[in-house]
Amino acid sequence: MPEDPLSTFRGARVLITGGLGFIGSNLARALSGAGARVHLVDCLVPSHGGSLFNIEGLTDHVDVTLRDLRDGDVITDLLRAAQFVFNLAGQRSHWDSMTDPQMDLDINCSAQLHLLENIRRTNPRVKVVFASTRQVYGIPKYLPVDEDHPTRPVDINGIHKVASECYHSLYARVHGLPCTILRLTNTIGPRMRIKDARQTFAGLWTRQAIEGQPFEIWGGTQVRDFNFVDDVVDALLRAAVSELSRGKIYNLGAAPTTLLELADIVRDITGCDYVVKAFPEARKPTDIGDYYANFNRIRVDLGWEPRTSLREAIMRTIEYYKKHLHRYV
Amino acid sequence: MPEDPLSTFRGARVLITGGLGFIGSNLARALSGAGARVHLVDCLVPSHGGSLFNIEGLTDHVDVTLRDLRDGDVITDLLRAAQFVFNLAGQRSHWDSMTDPQMDLDINCSAQLHLLENIRRTNPRVKVVFASTRQVYGIPKYLPVDEDHPTRPVDINGIHKVASECYHSLYARVHGLPCTILRLTNTIGPRMRIKDARQTFAGLWTRQAIEGQPFEIWGGTQVRDFNFVDDVVDALLRAAVSELSRGKIYNLGAAPTTLLELADIVRDITGCDYVVKAFPEARKPTDIGDYYANFNRIRVDLGWEPRTSLREAIMRTIEYYKKHLHRYV
Repeated sequence: MPEDPLSTFRGARVLITGGLGFIGSNLARALSGAGARVHLVDCLVPSHGGSLFNIEGLTDHVDVTLRDLRDGDVITDLLRAAQFVFNLAGQRSHWDSMTDPQMDLDINCSAQLHLLENIRRTNPRVKVVFASTRQVYGIPKYLPVDEDHPTRPVDINGIHKVASECYHSLYARVHGLPCTILRLTNTIGPRMRIKDARQTFAGLWTRQAIEGQPFEIWGGTQVRDFNFVDDVVDALLRAAVSELSRGKIYNLGAAPTTLLELADIVRDITGCDYVVKAFPEARKPTDIGDYYANFNRIRVDLGWEPRTSLREAIMRTIEYYKKHLHRYV
Repeated sequence: MPEDPLSTFRGARVLITGGLGFIGSNLARALSGAGARVHLVDCLVPSHGGSLFNIEGLTDHVDVTLRDLRDGDVITDLLRAAQFVFNLAGQRSHWDSMTDPQMDLDINCSAQLHLLENIRRTNPRVKVVFASTRQVYGIPKYLPVDEDHPTRPVDINGIHKVASECYHSLYARVHGLPCTILRLTNTIGPRMRIKDARQTFAGLWTRQAIEGQPFEIWGGTQVRDFNFVDDVVDALLRAAVSELSRGKIYNLGAAPTTLLELADIVRDITGCDYVVKAFPEARKPTDIGDYYANFNRIRVDLGWEPRTSLREAIMRTIEYYKKHLHRYV
């Protein structure tokens, strides 16, 4: 594993599905800066957080194809040319998955199956890194949660993420595709969705704190782990260039923190106070309680660990949105 | 739990999805005989094994609606009227799921989500019994496999069965639907598909043995457990009438036996010999090795256990197909 995994990508052809979204656009920025030939695929589903503004200043350096992977074999030529596929396309809202399960099924399962079938037929040697989620675990049976923890998701989104993970494992084992799965935890940073709490409550907090409107905490003692998006990008890159990662599943993670601790940092930085409210009854059946990951496997195999402190992550996030708030609300 | 669960169903309105299939039609026969008002829904997907011949002699006593659950809310009125739903619709072929994963997704996930959403909106108190499969476990980590064994399926069909199980658990937990999940193992008996080995090799063996054509065993030392269809029907009925079964998952099972032992019984009964062949390379990545279930939970909760010996099960199966072979090949 090279100390800087980015150096591997000079001149490499890279395809990013969901490339106009939060993590995809940050990844595109890093790869383009390193001299990769980056191609983004996105279908800009309204309310999913993807936007052309996410690649502002980058449009001369990356290619963009607007296609919907649900439509089947729509990017065959792009797949054939690629050396790396970062598969970040997906629906992330747990709540939306409960109100429209068929939509979640189409995006997180049907589109993923189309993509993998297409890769199997056209370019089965391309390295695939798939962004999954801690949501696959459901309610933790023990903490910290390692990759061998059973997967019993509590919402439709989690059920479909388990399925799409299993597709990747199956295509690796049965068809020889070199796939790696990362289970992301809460990711924060510039270009995350802040319009509402659909994807992450941290987005809404950021927006409200900048607008000077006291933000709401539901409960507050829940434990979570937060990764800054640059660290997630680093993990994706390391997974892509490693031979050791083939067919494997890795947790990301960070030092555990409570929502109240996070809120205090946001308040310190913005000067905006918060309000603590009871956790809503309607959300309880799909709540997972406390969560933080054991991410020892990726540390050992790929030399990854989070390098950005929570305070710095929030500072850089707030700084970005102070400048660009109007583009995200 | 009444000694004979069938007595509960006199006059009850019962809906069976996949009602023209192997298990559905045997269940319909039992329920109709007990005085239930039985309504069968099926879409007769070619090659899935459903047929009107399966309910020969019963057509004056049960109602049949030919609808495809993939089309959405197509049986709302039937669901509203039902007191029990036996949800047996599905695609069962592991091999077909690997060659046409989208078809498997549509039938085993999309249709199931439509059905559960429809039940939630129209009749959330109806008792639902869902027929799942041992395939959700993948390669056993230990034997016998109990219900707490991790679910890591090795083929597309298993992945989608995990998802559809999870839907039922989620609709039970979040929306209060009284669902019970049975994980069936190898079921044999009259009205199973015998045309080829798509659904069960035991079907093809039966056909070939009756036709006097030596049947093929791949390997032979693999361990499996076989339930006669009448015992599976009994388990479905017990799950439906029990209050204790709400939200629970139960393995079915039987005494473990090797494929060679099964083949010897078929040979004894039919006089037709068999040929042992090596297990095909192409099937190895989706093979699960040995399997048999721990079915103690259903024994304790519902008083169920298999009552038909393997020899008797095969005798009754052979007897049926000797009479009706031409309707099944």
